[in-house]
Amino acid sequence: MSEGKLTSTGLEFFDAEHSADVVNARTAPETSARLREIMSVFINHIHAAVRETRLTSEEWMTGIEFLTKTGQMCSDWRQEFILLSDVLGISMLVDAMDHYRPTGSTENTVLGPFYVTGAPRCENGANICLDGKGEPLVVAGRVVDNDGKPVAGATLDVWATNDDGFYDVQQKGVQPEHNLRGVFTTDAEGQYWFRTVKPRFYPIPDDGTVGKLLTALGRHPNRAAHLHFIVKAPGFDTVVTHIFTPDCRYLAEDAVFGVKQSLIADFQKIDDPAEAERLEFTAPFWKVEWNFVLARCEDVGGNQRIPHE
Amino acid sequence: MSEGKLTSTGLEFFDAEHSADVVNARTAPETSARLREIMSVFINHIHAAVRETRLTSEEWMTGIEFLTKTGQMCSDWRQEFILLSDVLGISMLVDAMDHYRPTGSTENTVLGPFYVTGAPRCENGANICLDGKGEPLVVAGRVVDNDGKPVAGATLDVWATNDDGFYDVQQKGVQPEHNLRGVFTTDAEGQYWFRTVKPRFYPIPDDGTVGKLLTALGRHPNRAAHLHFIVKAPGFDTVVTHIFTPDCRYLAEDAVFGVKQSLIADFQKIDDPAEAERLEFTAPFWKVEWNFVLARCEDVGGNQRIPHE
Repeated sequence: MSEGKLTSTGLEFFDAEHSADVVNARTAPETSARLREIMSVFINHIHAAVRETRLTSEEWMTGIEFLTKTGQMCSDWRQEFILLSDVLGISMLVDAMDHYRPTGSTENTVLGPFYVTGAPRCENGANICLDGKGEPLVVAGRVVDNDGKPVAGATLDVWATNDDGFYDVQQKGVQPEHNLRGVFTTDAEGQYWFRTVKPRFYPIPDDGTVGKLLTALGRHPNRAAHLHFIVKAPGFDTVVTHIFTPDCRYLAEDAVFGVKQSLIADFQKIDDPAEAERLEFTAPFWKVEWNFVLARCEDVGGNQRIPHE
Repeated sequence: MSEGKLTSTGLEFFDAEHSADVVNARTAPETSARLREIMSVFINHIHAAVRETRLTSEEWMTGIEFLTKTGQMCSDWRQEFILLSDVLGISMLVDAMDHYRPTGSTENTVLGPFYVTGAPRCENGANICLDGKGEPLVVAGRVVDNDGKPVAGATLDVWATNDDGFYDVQQKGVQPEHNLRGVFTTDAEGQYWFRTVKPRFYPIPDDGTVGKLLTALGRHPNRAAHLHFIVKAPGFDTVVTHIFTPDCRYLAEDAVFGVKQSLIADFQKIDDPAEAERLEFTAPFWKVEWNFVLARCEDVGGNQRIPHE
């Protein structure tokens, strides 16, 4: 089992050279095969990293304190470990491992820590910006399958920050409830549309351990401007994704590595007073047309984070 | 710098294949070289582990929740992340990396979470067992250098559980204050001696996330019976170590991998009523002779966890 050296008494003690083997050999035979695999791979890699860096006890204690404070920052509305995973690119990597889809399907990106269930169901065309701040934007398009056929009855759960860069749940009592949140449903032609405001860049919460780490690494905390979507339909793989604006200064350096080329949309500035009036906007306003391409469940490994309805 | 692929727009986005490179390329040039090294090595290994296990989003969330709860278990007297590090063999590995000493020097082992500063200074011969529980034990020996010469004025900070398997700080108000704790000083010949009780095995705190992990892995939480020591003298590398009893059933499977062959002592059972009376014991009692061999600071990398006095 283990390659740990046997001592003169025949007992197997700790051995720095084969440390991970000694630890992994302790796992009982009846342990689930998947847990055994995950633990042994992570133990191997963490021990290798300690050896490679010749980590000192003092440095390790700094790490222990960092992890402790990261856990202690977490609450019902703040998940500092997800932020950590996000800024280290781990969330995006896990998502990529977990979501192979047919070419042409809409790609996933990070869920982020600000998704909440229970956003209001909205009629197509509704305006989810309830605080009137920001530049008006209309988003319209279709949800289709890999053959380009409409997916009727698909739901689009949308959320975004307000124009001050905060989600409603970060400013309870300040923003209207459910500001910049809504769930839309496609019609028989797979069409959806809604009104909102053009998204802007904003910092991830940077007053905790993750913010300190970013500062130490000389990194800013800003996310490239985006709208969040979860798009679901029965029989299709749920998509957790964003639409990014093409003109954001942080597009190439999103703090959580969420940007993918295929998710950058064409935001058009429309200076048409009649069209603006029809939308109950004042001109100029912004418009983005965006189609979501869903893959059938049988064509993918399955999205295990957000259960299918 | 990074090998991440450049997109058609010339921007460098996330790329699952070179994910760690993309993340590490973000670290600013002015970041301390050591922090850059540690972060890049750990990011490389964690990304590699995610890829190797093809970790699912659901599994990663289980990990996030585990780390969160581990942080939230921590308090002034409970350090669940140190326990985690201990049961995964990381503490012992870091200690081994950090403490290369000349052959023959007393070896380090885990500090553990129950060391406290400020234990009472004791005269040689004092009995640190204040609750009268357990089998009497006398510990005697010398502190010497690598040439076998006595180290006068060395301090030995000793701590152990009582015979119920708990440290005083785990049972405040139940055990006498400073029960099984004391700081001894060697005489001109490097000699020390004290009275206590024979240590017994005990479980590490297993009512938290680490206990759950051990259960899932089919592992018990018991530490092989031991006495803790921190031995210090000016000009010498501080030793954080244990003496283990040779007859403990958990000697070969210490929950934190702390046992080293060189730290197993010869505990002798003495059935000598006269000697017992001289020690204010009742026969039979236990006796262990143990010498600590300190390495000079200039001969070692230095113990960075416990500052030298």
